[in-house]
Amino acid sequence: MIEDWDTFLLPYSQAVSELKVKLRGMRKQFLKNGEESPIEFVTGRVKPVESIKEKMIRRQVLEDRIEQDMQDMAGVRVMCQFVEDIYEVVDLIRKRTDMTVIEERDYVENEKPSGYRSYHIVVEYPVQMMNGQKTILAEIQVRTLEMNFWATIEHSLNYKFDGEFPTELRTRLQKASVKSYELDKEMSDIRKQILLAQKKQKDI
Amino acid sequence: MIEDWDTFLLPYSQAVSELKVKLRGMRKQFLKNGEESPIEFVTGRVKPVESIKEKMIRRQVLEDRIEQDMQDMAGVRVMCQFVEDIYEVVDLIRKRTDMTVIEERDYVENEKPSGYRSYHIVVEYPVQMMNGQKTILAEIQVRTLEMNFWATIEHSLNYKFDGEFPTELRTRLQKASVKSYELDKEMSDIRKQILLAQKKQKDI
Amino acid sequence: MIEDWDTFLLPYSQAVSELKVKLRGMRKQFLKNGEESPIEFVTGRVKPVESIKEKMIRRQVLEDRIEQDMQDMAGVRVMCQFVEDIYEVVDLIRKRTDMTVIEERDYVENEKPSGYRSYHIVVEYPVQMMNGQKTILAEIQVRTLEMNFWATIEHSLNYKFDGEFPTELRTRLQKASVKSYELDKEMSDIRKQILLAQKKQKDI
Amino acid sequence: MIEDWDTFLLPYSQAVSELKVKLRGMRKQFLKNGEESPIEFVTGRVKPVESIKEKMIRRQVLEDRIEQDMQDMAGVRVMCQFVEDIYEVVDLIRKRTDMTVIEERDYVENEKPSGYRSYHIVVEYPVQMMNGQKTILAEIQVRTLEMNFWATIEHSLNYKFDGEFPTELRTRLQKASVKSYELDKEMSDIRKQILLAQKKQKDI
Repeated sequence: MIEDWDTFLLPYSQAVSELKVKLRGMRKQFLKNGEESPIEFVTGRVKPVESIKEKMIRRQVLEDRIEQDMQDMAGVRVMCQFVEDIYEVVDLIRKRTDMTVIEERDYVENEKPSGYRSYHIVVEYPVQMMNGQKTILAEIQVRTLEMNFWATIEHSLNYKFDGEFPTELRTRLQKASVKSYELDKEMSDIRKQILLAQKKQKDI
Repeated sequence: MIEDWDTFLLPYSQAVSELKVKLRGMRKQFLKNGEESPIEFVTGRVKPVESIKEKMIRRQVLEDRIEQDMQDMAGVRVMCQFVEDIYEVVDLIRKRTDMTVIEERDYVENEKPSGYRSYHIVVEYPVQMMNGQKTILAEIQVRTLEMNFWATIEHSLNYKFDGEFPTELRTRLQKASVKSYELDKEMSDIRKQILLAQKKQKDI
Repeated sequence: MIEDWDTFLLPYSQAVSELKVKLRGMRKQFLKNGEESPIEFVTGRVKPVESIKEKMIRRQVLEDRIEQDMQDMAGVRVMCQFVEDIYEVVDLIRKRTDMTVIEERDYVENEKPSGYRSYHIVVEYPVQMMNGQKTILAEIQVRTLEMNFWATIEHSLNYKFDGEFPTELRTRLQKASVKSYELDKEMSDIRKQILLAQKKQKDI
Repeated sequence: MIEDWDTFLLPYSQAVSELKVKLRGMRKQFLKNGEESPIEFVTGRVKPVESIKEKMIRRQVLEDRIEQDMQDMAGVRVMCQFVEDIYEVVDLIRKRTDMTVIEERDYVENEKPSGYRSYHIVVEYPVQMMNGQKTILAEIQVRTLEMNFWATIEHSLNYKFDGEFPTELRTRLQKASVKSYELDKEMSDIRKQILLAQKKQKDI
């Protein structure tokens, strides 16, 4: 039994700190090179103990399987401006040699039934502990500002509501997600047109 | 003539640091009290010298009027989940005695022609400098995550494009802003319905 | 009875965050002006609940007197290079209008029996809470790096040892404090000689 | 020729950020385990461009050799309470597999002629850049609070003085360093006696 959750979660909290510094470093590189960054900002958190326990029950995860089966105890989130930025970030993460991608779930193109969209990457990440190296799992969620808008509000509404949403409201949230994604695609298209218009202007 | 911009901007940079700590503190208070926070996150920046100079030319601001006439050299941004949160935050800022609101511009209900939405507050804020107290102007922008999505992208597209956007693209951006605001209002309405449904459930 | 210490300590924790930003800002001002800063670095902490409770018993402080009588629940520490810097910092703090000095204790010249040296300032500091302004007490300790060396180690040795130190060791610590202070004064004197030598060189 | 120093120094600045997070993580581990930490605090910096250029001239380092020959462009400093903590930290760094120690210089036991004491470790550290992994050199300086006191002041006095110190003052600084080291050793001895006294007490 895990008696001291704080100590148990220490490598996860260390991983979150390191991953934040590393992914923010990617943004800095783009900016210093005078390029637009596909990364807008980065946040991170260790899953609160209460949420871990609740998920263990809900998903029937045994305590001795928790490190393999609960992949989001260390969680980092990368926010992008455009949908296409997501795939650029995913690509940059795949190329890194300081973490190993072991699973990818594209909830951008295949959204969850709720309407949730994001690209999830599970990585193996080595942390140096006092008694040697420990490899843990961490989840990196990559999403647009717009997907983050929807997900943040949906999460906060869920939190407010005991139990399941009434069907009608669930449907409205799903529809909002569809419109939200249309906006994301419209913005990408406007950007494309702007780049074309820009190019034309220069060619003249 | 301002010879050393770094030194000139020092009280502005100090104000930004203090305002960030203060507004983030408001969020912490809500969370510690177990309440939802109307503040999702806070960012801040001192206007880059190049942007100040460019704005001086564009708006014909003379250097000896810059401290009164350029109100956004110290800028702080507060992101909210819901439109109604914006007005709660504005109210909280009005009540504070450590800054004085001297101007408010409601671009939420009266959006700019571009489609830009945010609530702008200009405050007088006292900073302690080595040679005594100095009161400077700072601008606090309060907006939803959704308004931030639109404004971030519009800003970044503007940056990419030399000169004015082609009319057609400007129109598309404006329309996207309308849809974006509809989403904001839909989310507020869903929240209202959820609170009602929640209340009904409890009353049974 | 204080039921929720976290909530009770919230204004103290806010004060510590603000004071750190403000005192670090003073250092920045000196550096930007190309001057040496009398402030080397700044740290801060809210007194841990266990230490507050322990001190309430030891000093017989009643809970309804705690806000007036326990002056170091919000604590900030300023480290200086030279003894004379301490008095410069104290002076700068006295001149600020965003906090009011209500007590000063000069343990630099009048060290504690243990050998402890530092300059303690108690200030009244206004914090904006959701239900209005609240003025709290905070303690600012100003000390040299050398005094910090001694105090850090003495504190950590005390922590290790249950009860009182054996007399012989207490005496050795006191003697170390005397030598430590001699070093501080020697460094100040070397600095003075260097400034003189520098001046002479320039006059030639 | 290095045209853009900011871009050239980017991997160094990234390394400093990562190393600070990693070494501070070591401190956290000790504290969470309820043990005393041999690490008191950690600082870091990228060498300012002016200092790099000045050192290139002084040490006759050519620009195409700078990455191998200037080992302290990325610098991290670890402060300890006791001299023996230095060697514990050095040991912990040697055991890490995310950096490779390639050189050690023990200026603790073999101080520099000036009186300077610290333990210097040069490590190879891999940073992930956009175009792949880049291994850079970084210098980790490990020292007591007391050594840091002396080194900080000596550095700041040097900075004040154009050219070499007058011999007499150089001698006084060296002597101060000797006394300072005696204090370090006295503190270590007091600690040892306290641990012994503590043990005796428990055995009774």
